[in-house]
Amino acid sequence: VNRPADQPAITAPDFSHGLVTAVVQDDADGAVLMVAHMNQEAYELTRSTGHAWFWSRSRERLWEKGETSGNHLVVRSITIDCDGDALLLRVAPAGPACHTGARSCFHNPVD
Amino acid sequence: VNRPADQPAITAPDFSHGLVTAVVQDDADGAVLMVAHMNQEAYELTRSTGHAWFWSRSRERLWEKGETSGNHLVVRSITIDCDGDALLLRVAPAGPACHTGARSCFHNPVD
Repeated sequence: VNRPADQPAITAPDFSHGLVTAVVQDDADGAVLMVAHMNQEAYELTRSTGHAWFWSRSRERLWEKGETSGNHLVVRSITIDCDGDALLLRVAPAGPACHTGARSCFHNPVD
Repeated sequence: VNRPADQPAITAPDFSHGLVTAVVQDDADGAVLMVAHMNQEAYELTRSTGHAWFWSRSRERLWEKGETSGNHLVVRSITIDCDGDALLLRVAPAGPACHTGARSCFHNPVD
């Protein structure tokens, strides 16, 4: 998706209001795999390592996706949304993204 | 994505920890259009009207996407994630999803 020509480019996420939301999408077919959160350090680790890192709100610590399962996410691209508080990561997943073993965390249909 | 057979089905989002994150994906081609948040009332309005409603954290009020622009989102399906705090809405958008006029809010590439 192209950036509107009349809008200023956003080149970094805005952490001034807290964590940013990261949507993880399979680069191969566009499937949405999971949603997690990043602080500045997780974002920088993601950028420097090429693997997705997040901030766990429940465990209150940094984690590399796949650090125990081996199912890390190789980041192909990162796009920032219009107000800087959400990221879209297109990835090549090394295995199922969900801790349940499902390919995607989104596997509970409503009705 | 199928639900793992050994996991209990989640049939409703969990609002006990606050707002849930809603990822909006174009049902036609899988493009991720925007991320927003829902409280219980926004979720119920979305279910009852078939259009996406959200809770605006900045304006602290319910809003129907497109209420001013006319670019509402017709919801084709809703899927709940493995821990109940994020939703994936597949939609048919009536127009550009971003307030900038871009098709998607995710239009600022990193590097």
